[in-house]
Amino acid sequence: MFKDVLRNLVEGTDGAVASILMGFDGITVDSYTRTTTPGAPPWSVETVGAEYSALLGQIKQASAMLEFGTTSEVSVQADGMTTVVRLLNDEYFVALAIEPSANMGRARYNLRVKSSSLIEQLS
Amino acid sequence: MFKDVLRNLVEGTDGAVASILMGFDGITVDSYTRTTTPGAPPWSVETVGAEYSALLGQIKQASAMLEFGTTSEVSVQADGMTTVVRLLNDEYFVALAIEPSANMGRARYNLRVKSSSLIEQLS
Repeated sequence: MFKDVLRNLVEGTDGAVASILMGFDGITVDSYTRTTTPGAPPWSVETVGAEYSALLGQIKQASAMLEFGTTSEVSVQADGMTTVVRLLNDEYFVALAIEPSANMGRARYNLRVKSSSLIEQLS
Repeated sequence: MFKDVLRNLVEGTDGAVASILMGFDGITVDSYTRTTTPGAPPWSVETVGAEYSALLGQIKQASAMLEFGTTSEVSVQADGMTTVVRLLNDEYFVALAIEPSANMGRARYNLRVKSSSLIEQLS
C-alpha cells in the first residue's frame, strides 16, 4: 500500500528520482527509487532519509522554540538535488527527491496531495 | 546599503514580515522588520536567524555528505510562519520570513533576485 503511493508520487512527478516514508527515528517504512533514471543515483534514498530524520528533529524543535507552531514542510535545494519533505505527524515524514531542474512547485503539490493518503494509512 | 536591500525585499513581497542577513556564525550583518504588521511579531528576527544559522551548518554538511553539492536554498513551513533562506556564500545567508498564507513562489523569486545584489556587496 505505502509502496504504491510512493511509486505514484515518483512516477507522477517530472524529474522525481526517489521517495521515502520514514520515522523520525530514521527507520524506513517504505521507499521507491525510479530505476529508469539514466545512471542510477550514487546514493540510496535510505541514506538520504536517515540524514534528514536527524535534521528534521532539530528543525521541529527550532520551530516550536520560536513559537512558529508545528512544522509541516521542509525543502532543501542543492546543486545536485532538491529534496522536499512533508512532516506527516509526530512520528513519520515523507520525502521526495527531484532533479534540480524539475518543477518544485509541482513536486510540493503532489507531495501534499499524497500525504493525506499516507496519513490515513498510518493511523 | 544592506538595509535598503533587506527593506525592499520585505516591503516588495506580499505577506513578508522580516528579513535578515547573517553569518553562519550567528552574527547579524543587518535586518529589517516590517513595523506596519498588525500586532508586532512576538519574536525578533535575530533570534530566528540565530536558530537557523546552526541548522544551516548541519544542512550544508548533510548535502555535502550525500554528494548533493552546495546547498543554495532552504525553506521551512510551520503553522505560524514560513521561512525561506538563501545561502549566499561560505559565510553568509539571507532569510525572509513570510506569513503562511503568502505566496511562497514569489518570495523565493524575490529572494533569489535580491541575493545577487547582496553577494556583490559582500565581496
